[in-house]
Amino acid sequence: MAKEHLKASENEAHRLSRRALLTGGAVGAGIGALLGGAGGVAGGYALAERDRANEPRFDPEAEPALTPSADREGFGGEALSCHGDHQAGIVTVPATHVRHIAYTLRPETDRAAIARMLRLLTGDIEALTAGVAPLADPEPELAERPARLTVTLGVGAELVDRVDPAKRPAWLAPLPAFTLDQLGNGFDGGDLLLIVQADDQLPVAHAARMLHRDLDRFAEVAWVQEGFRQARGAEAKGATMRNLMGQVDGTVNPAPDDADFDSLVWVDSAAGQPWLVGGSAFVLRRIRMELDTWDRVDRPGREQTIGRTLADGAALSNPHGGENAPADFDAKNALGLPIISSAAHIRRATSQDPSERIVRRAVNYDTGHEAGLLFGCYQRDPLRQFVPIQRRLDEADLLNEWVTHTGSAVFAVLPGFRSGETLGAALLA
Amino acid sequence: MAKEHLKASENEAHRLSRRALLTGGAVGAGIGALLGGAGGVAGGYALAERDRANEPRFDPEAEPALTPSADREGFGGEALSCHGDHQAGIVTVPATHVRHIAYTLRPETDRAAIARMLRLLTGDIEALTAGVAPLADPEPELAERPARLTVTLGVGAELVDRVDPAKRPAWLAPLPAFTLDQLGNGFDGGDLLLIVQADDQLPVAHAARMLHRDLDRFAEVAWVQEGFRQARGAEAKGATMRNLMGQVDGTVNPAPDDADFDSLVWVDSAAGQPWLVGGSAFVLRRIRMELDTWDRVDRPGREQTIGRTLADGAALSNPHGGENAPADFDAKNALGLPIISSAAHIRRATSQDPSERIVRRAVNYDTGHEAGLLFGCYQRDPLRQFVPIQRRLDEADLLNEWVTHTGSAVFAVLPGFRSGETLGAALLA
Repeated sequence: MAKEHLKASENEAHRLSRRALLTGGAVGAGIGALLGGAGGVAGGYALAERDRANEPRFDPEAEPALTPSADREGFGGEALSCHGDHQAGIVTVPATHVRHIAYTLRPETDRAAIARMLRLLTGDIEALTAGVAPLADPEPELAERPARLTVTLGVGAELVDRVDPAKRPAWLAPLPAFTLDQLGNGFDGGDLLLIVQADDQLPVAHAARMLHRDLDRFAEVAWVQEGFRQARGAEAKGATMRNLMGQVDGTVNPAPDDADFDSLVWVDSAAGQPWLVGGSAFVLRRIRMELDTWDRVDRPGREQTIGRTLADGAALSNPHGGENAPADFDAKNALGLPIISSAAHIRRATSQDPSERIVRRAVNYDTGHEAGLLFGCYQRDPLRQFVPIQRRLDEADLLNEWVTHTGSAVFAVLPGFRSGETLGAALLA
Repeated sequence: MAKEHLKASENEAHRLSRRALLTGGAVGAGIGALLGGAGGVAGGYALAERDRANEPRFDPEAEPALTPSADREGFGGEALSCHGDHQAGIVTVPATHVRHIAYTLRPETDRAAIARMLRLLTGDIEALTAGVAPLADPEPELAERPARLTVTLGVGAELVDRVDPAKRPAWLAPLPAFTLDQLGNGFDGGDLLLIVQADDQLPVAHAARMLHRDLDRFAEVAWVQEGFRQARGAEAKGATMRNLMGQVDGTVNPAPDDADFDSLVWVDSAAGQPWLVGGSAFVLRRIRMELDTWDRVDRPGREQTIGRTLADGAALSNPHGGENAPADFDAKNALGLPIISSAAHIRRATSQDPSERIVRRAVNYDTGHEAGLLFGCYQRDPLRQFVPIQRRLDEADLLNEWVTHTGSAVFAVLPGFRSGETLGAALLA
């Protein structure tokens, strides 16, 4: 442990000098300076107001990160702070590439080993997200262009139980069974989760490898699921991500400036375990798409299935209102029938209870043999948020003929941390 | 066949009107206009002079494709012509994402079926690369932002044999065995190859799916291998791609303006089968990297193994000369020993015979469980170009302790085609 502590300290010194370099240079004039000015509290999510998945909310005048000068230099140099009340990567602008890596703890990894592991991970995450090679990184050049790299850490039920079973929230367990689930394909559960995101696959691959090097003695890989959105810089202005079914995906997502955002996403002292205050619950569902049969459905049929136009994602009740106009579920057509079908996906997914919402962070996956959506979502309590939504969808959703949930996992996302602190310290306290 | 012909014609009309739109709009002011002006012959590789893997050769003043105005609009709208003397995607600027998809012909796919298949693929490729949905594309919105999509078509020995065994070049066969190969992992051979490339994974996934829809009745997927480079827009000015070992990768690649480039890459009437004139031979080797043990080698050891500095890829004989200065294999150190070891990778890879060179198009792969390089290369004759190089490496290369060839395939890359022509027409003639 003394050695690891030393490593963290050396790291810190290296990191600070390197960060000074980053923020002082040309890149720093863009995003680096913004983060530097925002300071500790806002650091990890200073860019939350810009939501690439929901572009119309975003005022480009207020956003210095993508200035032409930063673009000319290449966005690879952009670094996001990992420090703040909450971990980075949850409300930060969605990245192009997301790799979810779940680990199973080795039998001998006890509470003391978990504490060592979290200290090592903290140092790695601080270095890698700052564009700095962790100590003894054999390929430091691969660390230098993080491209907004974030690493978000979640813990599973088994890890919490090894620390103290009394600390485990009721929701940190496999989800209740849904009728249509077809799980058991090697993408369920896990004791530890790394969500590694960046706008470039190279830093994702390098970060995953450096983190694995330190994790290897404590845990082994359970599964890896990597997804993507449209490449950064490829999107037209105002465009929203589409999934592989061709649908606009990510509409009506709670935004950090919504009045109830905090109560939807962050565990607070009233709602949860004290060690998890400022953290969240992450649910990842692997949703396979049956694209071959989906292709046989005509365009009106596919729009009816979802309840939105394919052209721009507008609700069918208001097809010229654009993606962000609220759906009118009471609207009727000339025959007096509901315009948005009673089993349309958006109707079934929408709750009358505003506290039943979740923050979605879905990405596409395509192995070449199978395609679909890695549906990740954040909330305060999955049993009160994801589960009732998914129960309605499981019971009746026109889309079910073409989508199947084939993987399911729940993690407690650790609260944020500041420089000098360790991720998960409150869990171990 | 009549129906398919009709389909191609309708497609053509749609495509032309769409292309006019593209080249007339804001995007067209950048790359679209360049391609439009370059015309048929140069169309498919008008950007060849810009080599992202070898940036120092490139004069940004001469290159309008990445003007700030195009960037602001998003590069997703950039389209590369698929027409020309050669197929696109061979000497075009390397794309961020490359998916190699090999197919095995179904038993009933005879010569007539192959002809139908190639006509369908031709129409699909013309539409998709122009940013136009192929006929009956159920998600036309996914086709609209091709992000420099190219689809390069290769044929394997079995396909040529089904057309006419006399037309098969001697080199279109499995490569001779190399001692250290560990093949047989499901990544060998194939009767048909699609190389789908773009700067965005979304058009790659969509194009692969649309092509598969038409291929399905003729062939089934043998294997899929997807790789990546640093994201477009992430790179610092003048930077060269690094592979997952941290090395600068892609140095000393023949460039289209080299005097002997054509003779290295394109089959000509003297060298090959008349149907393949203007085509090339593509070899794909899956090279697994043993990164865990590689990490235990210190930095000087790794530089000696390759013969180049890790910092910028300069040859060790001239460590301050930069990546592109020629290596001096005769240079000795103070002890009179060769500075570049007798078994250094670059020494073993370099031939005394300038006709023994290949054009490399390698990309990284990382499944989360295994990482390495998808080493693709083009040449006129693999038996005279790739094989002697690989034989020397197989016999003695310091790098062999950390790399293993686990997949191998050879394809004849069809000659280019013009509007109104069909890919592979000369093979079927």
